[in-house]
Amino acid sequence: MNLEKLCVHTITNKPWSLSEALDAYASQGIGGISIWQNIVESDGAHAVASMIKDYPLEVVSYVRGGFFAHQSASDRQKSIDHNKKLLDEAAEIGAPMLVLVCGAEPKQPLKISRDYIKDGIESLIPHADSLGVHMTIEPLHPMYADSRSAINTLSQANDLAEYFDTRTVGVAVDVYHLWWDPNLEKEIARCGANNNLQAYHICDWKVPTTDMLNDRGLMGEGCIPIKKISGWVTAAGFRGYHEVEIFSNKYWSLDQHEFLDLIVKAFNKLQD
Amino acid sequence: MNLEKLCVHTITNKPWSLSEALDAYASQGIGGISIWQNIVESDGAHAVASMIKDYPLEVVSYVRGGFFAHQSASDRQKSIDHNKKLLDEAAEIGAPMLVLVCGAEPKQPLKISRDYIKDGIESLIPHADSLGVHMTIEPLHPMYADSRSAINTLSQANDLAEYFDTRTVGVAVDVYHLWWDPNLEKEIARCGANNNLQAYHICDWKVPTTDMLNDRGLMGEGCIPIKKISGWVTAAGFRGYHEVEIFSNKYWSLDQHEFLDLIVKAFNKLQD
Repeated sequence: MNLEKLCVHTITNKPWSLSEALDAYASQGIGGISIWQNIVESDGAHAVASMIKDYPLEVVSYVRGGFFAHQSASDRQKSIDHNKKLLDEAAEIGAPMLVLVCGAEPKQPLKISRDYIKDGIESLIPHADSLGVHMTIEPLHPMYADSRSAINTLSQANDLAEYFDTRTVGVAVDVYHLWWDPNLEKEIARCGANNNLQAYHICDWKVPTTDMLNDRGLMGEGCIPIKKISGWVTAAGFRGYHEVEIFSNKYWSLDQHEFLDLIVKAFNKLQD
Repeated sequence: MNLEKLCVHTITNKPWSLSEALDAYASQGIGGISIWQNIVESDGAHAVASMIKDYPLEVVSYVRGGFFAHQSASDRQKSIDHNKKLLDEAAEIGAPMLVLVCGAEPKQPLKISRDYIKDGIESLIPHADSLGVHMTIEPLHPMYADSRSAINTLSQANDLAEYFDTRTVGVAVDVYHLWWDPNLEKEIARCGANNNLQAYHICDWKVPTTDMLNDRGLMGEGCIPIKKISGWVTAAGFRGYHEVEIFSNKYWSLDQHEFLDLIVKAFNKLQD
């Protein structure tokens, strides 16, 4: 696999503006870019779309929507309205999918959050359908079950996607969230067999991890068997981009060109 | 439930010596104490045993053995020998069980670690049997899958315990590690139905959690539905102690008598 199937999330190079990221990714021969919401928020979807047009980069995903689990009905409605806007933006910037971080509320039973998540996604399907934008459920690591997502295993995400039974709703496999799961190989195969495997995110789990949010590792520096998981993903029929999504105070403090060189080197090493 | 079924782990009041802990727990009317290894290491099992004899406190568990997943065979053998010694110490201090943190090695496939864990426990069964001490598998939160335990769900712990099919090997349910699991209620019932539910540990998950090891919360200050989980544990037939196991830089810096008052108050509130 060459860099054509490598994609980098703009958040990975958070210090960069969109044009800096586009210049750097394109000059490295990277094939894809996933756009984070902060970029669209600051530049506007129209400007983002016209900027990207000038580069040989495919927009792989728009990150991130979701957060459907609010306690009050009015907040849940606000979240649905917000996700409609995000779906519009995804369509405008040419992203085929909106990645969903499903949401959780600390004092609310996970079961209730899961019901609200189901309702939220369901109510967005017609709008997503009309735009031709997929909604891609990303199960999050159990350490985020308190306030970010009540969907914490690939099994749960598969259940949800199969419940909706439409290509409009699929699943993102992120090695950081799922690597520990004894059922991972089986659930990746299931995800592929049901045509629900829409995205594949890579990074690494550092040992030790010193921050639960912003201490993700570069591929190869941690304990995740990325090559093995990539093999499972390929065996499940996935032919899409390998998206590098690294939140890291350490790497954000580096010169971002140096960091991007490290990413490309680490990605290439995974193909050995 | 009154304090007779409350047990406190010595590590919860880490700044205290054993005699300080025994004095304080007994004077509160707390029924049980779980002894951590550092206490036995410094005082010796014989002295610990004779100290405890003078108090109306039951030794609930000895914490902790395990760490079976070392990469080299000689290290694994050392770990088995060490666990034999720990089982001897458990017997000497009158603990009916040794709690197992099963182990994991960062660069080793989890599947291999899991095989080593199975082998390690298996080889210890005759010794544990001869002493009448149980080995209690404690599944650890997935965020510890890198270096502490490759057993990260109750389902896995149940599988292991059922594989051995002996009262000598059982399971500890710790709400901190397992609360997020969508299969928790079902797996607790399964654990009870197979007579494998040997211990129940409580504390809380703080939102936000600022340290992955030492920022556990006091019951009620976090997002874990402890009352609900306690109900499942009771429904599964468990009638043992509710063991408070809190690692917390914050609480360790308090006056430990004040902290113990908070623990008792929080435990009582759970019974409302």
